Amino acid sequence: VVNDPFKALSHPIRRGIVERLAAGPATVGDATRGFGVSKPAISKHLKVLERAGLVSRAKEAQSRPAALTAGPLKEVDEWVGRYRVVWEQRLDRLDKYLSELHEKEKRHGRKG
Amino acid sequence: VVNDPFKALSHPIRRGIVERLAAGPATVGDATRGFGVSKPAISKHLKVLERAGLVSRAKEAQSRPAALTAGPLKEVDEWVGRYRVVWEQRLDRLDKYLSELHEKEKRHGRKG
Repeated sequence: VVNDPFKALSHPIRRGIVERLAAGPATVGDATRGFGVSKPAISKHLKVLERAGLVSRAKEAQSRPAALTAGPLKEVDEWVGRYRVVWEQRLDRLDKYLSELHEKEKRHGRKG
Repeated sequence: VVNDPFKALSHPIRRGIVERLAAGPATVGDATRGFGVSKPAISKHLKVLERAGLVSRAKEAQSRPAALTAGPLKEVDEWVGRYRVVWEQRLDRLDKYLSELHEKEKRHGRKG
């Protein structure tokens, strides 16, 4: 799934670019500063983000500033958010469940 | 970055497993039902989720029920959430910015 936003965001530099673009549109040169990687590498990462629809680039010659697009980030937010209540409510219960299992294992004296 | 939660969540079946586990702990057999893939495939996906810390598995023999762990999902939620306000506020502004650029291009008569 090439244009999966989760996949596009699975590289720390690409998340860094998103963080950078959250401050406003930037050219490749702008986006490159501070990452310690080459412009072509940043260009490649921008292409991945663009393919996933996270970034939109102006078609102007040369500079082609990149800007964040909200759609897929919203999708990711909504997907994760759907489970927010669930995991917050269940965390205590799961902890209990797992520690009960671990207790059981200990009592049965099983070892790896 | 093997244990990147974004990477772990970049496969639709793994997101499906997370959705399934949000309803409660499940064995591989439970988790397999409804996906139309084999148990070994589900096991592999569970391992990826486990490595990313999204899933915790009991060490009991055979069934080893898997349960959702909140940590990395919370991280993803927090990361995306950090930009929620930004992207919601900027969406209009970016739209304007991009349409202005497109207008400029049209006026300049540039073509791919």
